[in-house]
Amino acid sequence: MTHKYKNVYIKDAFTIAGPYESDGPLSKYFDVKYQKDLYFGEKSWEKAEIKLMKESIEKIMKRNDLSENEIDLLIAGDLQNQLAVSDYAAAKFKIPFLGVYNACATSSESLIIASNFIENKMTKNCLCAISSHNMAAEKQFRNPTEYGTPKPKTATFTVTGASSILLTNKKTNIKIESSTIGRVIDKNINDVNNMGAVMAPAAADTIYSHLTKLNRQASYYDLILTGDLGIYGKEILIEYMKTAYNIDLSNNYDDCGTIIYDLDKQPVLAGGSGPACSTLVNFSYIYKEMLKNKLQKVLIVPTGALFSPTMVFQKESIPAIAHAISLEVEL
Amino acid sequence: MTHKYKNVYIKDAFTIAGPYESDGPLSKYFDVKYQKDLYFGEKSWEKAEIKLMKESIEKIMKRNDLSENEIDLLIAGDLQNQLAVSDYAAAKFKIPFLGVYNACATSSESLIIASNFIENKMTKNCLCAISSHNMAAEKQFRNPTEYGTPKPKTATFTVTGASSILLTNKKTNIKIESSTIGRVIDKNINDVNNMGAVMAPAAADTIYSHLTKLNRQASYYDLILTGDLGIYGKEILIEYMKTAYNIDLSNNYDDCGTIIYDLDKQPVLAGGSGPACSTLVNFSYIYKEMLKNKLQKVLIVPTGALFSPTMVFQKESIPAIAHAISLEVEL
Repeated sequence: MTHKYKNVYIKDAFTIAGPYESDGPLSKYFDVKYQKDLYFGEKSWEKAEIKLMKESIEKIMKRNDLSENEIDLLIAGDLQNQLAVSDYAAAKFKIPFLGVYNACATSSESLIIASNFIENKMTKNCLCAISSHNMAAEKQFRNPTEYGTPKPKTATFTVTGASSILLTNKKTNIKIESSTIGRVIDKNINDVNNMGAVMAPAAADTIYSHLTKLNRQASYYDLILTGDLGIYGKEILIEYMKTAYNIDLSNNYDDCGTIIYDLDKQPVLAGGSGPACSTLVNFSYIYKEMLKNKLQKVLIVPTGALFSPTMVFQKESIPAIAHAISLEVEL
Repeated sequence: MTHKYKNVYIKDAFTIAGPYESDGPLSKYFDVKYQKDLYFGEKSWEKAEIKLMKESIEKIMKRNDLSENEIDLLIAGDLQNQLAVSDYAAAKFKIPFLGVYNACATSSESLIIASNFIENKMTKNCLCAISSHNMAAEKQFRNPTEYGTPKPKTATFTVTGASSILLTNKKTNIKIESSTIGRVIDKNINDVNNMGAVMAPAAADTIYSHLTKLNRQASYYDLILTGDLGIYGKEILIEYMKTAYNIDLSNNYDDCGTIIYDLDKQPVLAGGSGPACSTLVNFSYIYKEMLKNKLQKVLIVPTGALFSPTMVFQKESIPAIAHAISLEVEL
């Protein structure tokens, strides 16, 4: 489902990064960096992640001099079961709350829902908060890292971080120009250590749908940026787009999972993943490059593997989804 | 956050009920009844729940002669971790998908987001699908029932069922007239067997906010219907509304958790709960009474306990939320 917006703008974006991300190539773009450990002074990884999301909300409100009753709506999501991070972060604020989940595509899901509320003149200021935490995710989805379970090179590394994006109906220089809500794609892959392969077909479906519905060439965008396919998933997507749709992504395409870390030096296998991966890249580095007018038109396509350990234990394959958002500089 | 809608209507609602629900007082209102066991021919409870949601989507599409490409958007949610039921059900349809989670308030969350897309003229037909499954929920959130763990009388019984609601921008006799998105309320309760007490303050906050913003008395509604507080939570809400806001709910208020079962005869303790509880009551019994013009104005207020076993094990209390939707007959 593709739509063009008239009056949806990004007023501000606040990003918080964990130690691995702060050691990576995008370090200078993050607003807050936690470099000591993954606990951030809390007693559990889950509480550490809640702290990150809560802090990103508090600090974007403070930087924009907004009180709770000036934020109409908070839309948030994370990887924890029952969206526990979002729930407990939202409990700290007297702001109407909607919890959303499309795995690592949750960031674009939240922005699309928020854009719709703003376009509809129902809200003036809407906050979208997203987080993930490496250890909290490993513990819940895979094996606690203490087990030392070996992983293949196609596995990705969950990003630790949080972001809050403030959308508004008042003109700023960065517009949410259009969006495409993706469909669930299941290509019968059940390799939990190759999420890039799981998600690439969903990204392809959404990018193709977005370009077709808006009658655009891929070259319309300065950059098309998928969220967390990693190095192998990225290769699959390029090949898939060429083969299935005859669309050449070789010139203006990259993947957030391959940008957030230094893949040669950091121990992150195929790259970054998790909802915070794409949102940290898109709303620190890319957003700031757009503010400087170095990029004018960017299509961000966060991708989500709808991985349920319960269903994979029951021999099911892993479905995936991707939602696209077109950001444009409007001076 | 409260809004009035101009052009959002319910075109159809399809409900599927499990055995306990089919044995209850609302039996005749459900479209499909599974009365044999809780597996519905599947090999696991999770797959059984996926079957229910998938069937509700297929059958509402068939009854309305709609193909996949005539449904603009599917918004779905359930209680399973990672929204596994919604994900795997959505994977069966080529329809753009958004996953949402506010525990048992997910049903109203999905309808509010859908209403906004329709009001904004972005979609013509939007499906909202919701489910829960008693055994799948017990296994995930509490103890497998085989353990025979005793429960106090304040515990509720998760409803097994699924519903699909079809919203449209074309006039029908049942209008979604307004809605209020609730805030997360945490009153420091951590009794996992008393969700009614956890959720009642959230229901109160949302009902008060809805009435105040629209400058309405409680008597504006023929019926105000909370979703799954159960008999004790219902008493708490009546008392709370009286004490905190001087609003008398004694004449036109009831709770879905106390309606869906025969509390004297069925072994359901304080009543029904789960996302399917309120949606089965609201979109079988209440919806059909409204179609017959026996009720004209109903405020449905599904309530959600944002219960995370992980966070409760870490000594945290349970936050709650409620979203209200005003349904009106418009002949």
